[in-house]
Amino acid sequence: MKMAHLITNCSFQTFSSSPNYCRNIGQLQNSKSSNLSLKSCSRRQKKSYVTCASAAVQGQTQTPLTGSQQAYEHSSSKPKKVMVIGGDGYCGWATALHLSNKGYEVAIVDNLVRRAFDNQLGLDSLTPITSIQNRVRRWKSLTAKTIQLFIGDICDFEFLSEAFKSFEPDAAVHFGEQRSAPYSMIDRSRAVYTQHNNVIGTLNVLFAIKEYSEECHLVKLGTMGEYGTPNIDIEEGFITITHNGRTDTLPYPKQASSFYHLSKVHDSHNIAFTCKAWGIRATDLNQGVVYGVRTDETAMHEELSNRFDYDGVFGTALNRFCVQAAVGHPLTVYGKGGQTRGYLDIRDTVQCVELAIANPAKPGEFRVFNQFTEQFSVNELAKLVTAAGAKLGLEVETKSIPNPRVEAEEHYYNAKHTKLIELGLVPHLLSDSLLDSLLNFAIQYKDRVDTAQIMPSVSWKKMGAKPRTVSV
Amino acid sequence: MKMAHLITNCSFQTFSSSPNYCRNIGQLQNSKSSNLSLKSCSRRQKKSYVTCASAAVQGQTQTPLTGSQQAYEHSSSKPKKVMVIGGDGYCGWATALHLSNKGYEVAIVDNLVRRAFDNQLGLDSLTPITSIQNRVRRWKSLTAKTIQLFIGDICDFEFLSEAFKSFEPDAAVHFGEQRSAPYSMIDRSRAVYTQHNNVIGTLNVLFAIKEYSEECHLVKLGTMGEYGTPNIDIEEGFITITHNGRTDTLPYPKQASSFYHLSKVHDSHNIAFTCKAWGIRATDLNQGVVYGVRTDETAMHEELSNRFDYDGVFGTALNRFCVQAAVGHPLTVYGKGGQTRGYLDIRDTVQCVELAIANPAKPGEFRVFNQFTEQFSVNELAKLVTAAGAKLGLEVETKSIPNPRVEAEEHYYNAKHTKLIELGLVPHLLSDSLLDSLLNFAIQYKDRVDTAQIMPSVSWKKMGAKPRTVSV
Repeated sequence: MKMAHLITNCSFQTFSSSPNYCRNIGQLQNSKSSNLSLKSCSRRQKKSYVTCASAAVQGQTQTPLTGSQQAYEHSSSKPKKVMVIGGDGYCGWATALHLSNKGYEVAIVDNLVRRAFDNQLGLDSLTPITSIQNRVRRWKSLTAKTIQLFIGDICDFEFLSEAFKSFEPDAAVHFGEQRSAPYSMIDRSRAVYTQHNNVIGTLNVLFAIKEYSEECHLVKLGTMGEYGTPNIDIEEGFITITHNGRTDTLPYPKQASSFYHLSKVHDSHNIAFTCKAWGIRATDLNQGVVYGVRTDETAMHEELSNRFDYDGVFGTALNRFCVQAAVGHPLTVYGKGGQTRGYLDIRDTVQCVELAIANPAKPGEFRVFNQFTEQFSVNELAKLVTAAGAKLGLEVETKSIPNPRVEAEEHYYNAKHTKLIELGLVPHLLSDSLLDSLLNFAIQYKDRVDTAQIMPSVSWKKMGAKPRTVSV
Repeated sequence: MKMAHLITNCSFQTFSSSPNYCRNIGQLQNSKSSNLSLKSCSRRQKKSYVTCASAAVQGQTQTPLTGSQQAYEHSSSKPKKVMVIGGDGYCGWATALHLSNKGYEVAIVDNLVRRAFDNQLGLDSLTPITSIQNRVRRWKSLTAKTIQLFIGDICDFEFLSEAFKSFEPDAAVHFGEQRSAPYSMIDRSRAVYTQHNNVIGTLNVLFAIKEYSEECHLVKLGTMGEYGTPNIDIEEGFITITHNGRTDTLPYPKQASSFYHLSKVHDSHNIAFTCKAWGIRATDLNQGVVYGVRTDETAMHEELSNRFDYDGVFGTALNRFCVQAAVGHPLTVYGKGGQTRGYLDIRDTVQCVELAIANPAKPGEFRVFNQFTEQFSVNELAKLVTAAGAKLGLEVETKSIPNPRVEAEEHYYNAKHTKLIELGLVPHLLSDSLLDSLLNFAIQYKDRVDTAQIMPSVSWKKMGAKPRTVSV
């Protein structure tokens, strides 16, 4: 909580060279309920506020659009304006660009806390990333498309209200959560931060929709980890149970295994309730583990580069393995390595979110889609990376290390994932060529790898109540 | 949140006449990690702190013990010290006295926020209740039994840590939550308060157990409302599902119907995880709707009286019906009245909690008991009250009013509740005699009834994002 407010109140440089800069500020000044006191576009503002970044990039000419950037055909009933909450993060940034490229009017809402986590923990993205302000200016210079920026904390309802009233979204994609299981298990304060930030932030989004944009479709990022590893097939959100001769379709039982995963379970329950009680329309995307870094849009310019995490706190399994292979570090398999999960390419993340937006839930409907394309065990991933490394002349070793988590290391796993396919998802599968490309990417940036960050440093069992102030 | 901290920081009068008063204060001063700065027992302290109320009641002689107050046989392995979190509330106060009477060493932890809710909303208990300090002094004067008082907010981990380190509980009974569904649906700020207070408070209790009292058995009050009204039998916490030819026993699916009920669902998930990850031992008591007011202990003296709520925010169905019958107000049935729930007498609440404590969960075990004794629909309750009223010469009318909640008004309901019976629960059933007694109690206090508080004033559908500052 403290952290969130810290970030809310941080200052950042404004872009006084932008002729459009004051547009949103002006809207705020006209809003009776706003308590923001911005009177002018001074060079440095000390309070958090809403800003619309401009295209004040010098010396840039417009670049031809690539790949899938065909114009999106909007009928009058189709959603046009999408608010991407958490749009500065790994999945959020790629999604914001993809939606902008597809013709949606996009606004990013973010408190930039993900960057603060890196600062606090001494971590860094493998890829250099520039400021969110530079990112959206670069995007504008390349594509002539504007992405509005609302910098602030969704736990601050006054801020969120202003963003909703100003932008009036048809859809809100909600990535704005602390998204690392290990981060949530560092100490009590991070556990509390994670559950407070995620649960209260989502409650605020629900109230903002009810109050200001009743028709707005909430597209919420959940996680496959909410289900845990039951000994029966995992369905998409609901399961039909026959019990003592009677039958009902009920929410699929959840068995989350970190305070982070639990926060997403809490969110899902809260959202389902508001769909029923208030008629909110919502899609809960239970996403698998995302890998990859380039999308058509982020590949357009180095200033559009997405972040790529390989560290023990924010790095996900396959991305971390590729970095380990690139620098000659053994692939670190936690325990027996039989842990099986759903995986997807980040190019499919952005595709799935766009499909959910383009085919919105009905008022009062709470839909759940399992958002992944393939299942792998950790051992299977290690074998794939080893084989791909061999093709590139890398000798890749695998090492089992004590599992820092509390989880089944050998288990049944069969999760359904047909609903997004039915909506038109064409998956990018983890073929050898993809592995080559991901590995080559890791090799390209291997001089930036800090090998001290690779090993896990957060223990599920040993987490303490006292603040952990030393480096994780 | 703000409210909780407000309460934490409230001042109250200390009891300088007590020779034992400084015992806990001295312990605090010896604690290195304490940041409390109490140097002396001055007449008024401005900071929240830990206090041990004394028996400084003038002119009292010890009164013989009543009813079930036979000495409790503690074997060396049996729990002796019980912390009752929320021990100033309706269920908590009755439980604290019952456990003290049974021979447990009891400490109450409470921030007294329930009393603040009444002040804010202009509500009052039907029964006059005295301060918690007077309550425990009166108890000491009557029984020679000391109940320690820790006044503060469990969302403040520093306070909670001191209470745990000082008292070293064998069991912690956790009633310390905002417990009204309508309260949680007044406005956004109350919804956020309820989820923050309940979820973070419970997280803190779990961390305090892990850090300071690893063997401590958590007995957590949940609610039958977590299950909602599925079209299949409700089991006790878990359900065995056979699906596509495979079988597993999984957490029973939850469908809560208010931000309050949802907070309890979140708690249950968090607790289950810590049992698995840390070896916490926990019992989740999914309690039905409690009715009644007198227990053997609270009946001993008017200063031990329990609170009795009949208002639209905190009043529960049967208690409210009895008050309505007593004052000649029609019984207010919400909608069709087919809403069926589990009910229990408050004398069974205290019995159930004691059974759970005396038969603790094993380390790592997450047990769920459904804590109620009988099922009734609202219409059935109205008929019972009408019949009991007729015997007392009261003409009782029933009126259906628009349902302020979003809930099924006609539904299947069959919930299991055998586990506490197996542990030895002997229920007090809702017989005619009990209804007579509860009705007579309402008649005794009917001059204190504020009829303006009887009708529901909180709407599930109409709740707003803006703070509701006028009377509910």
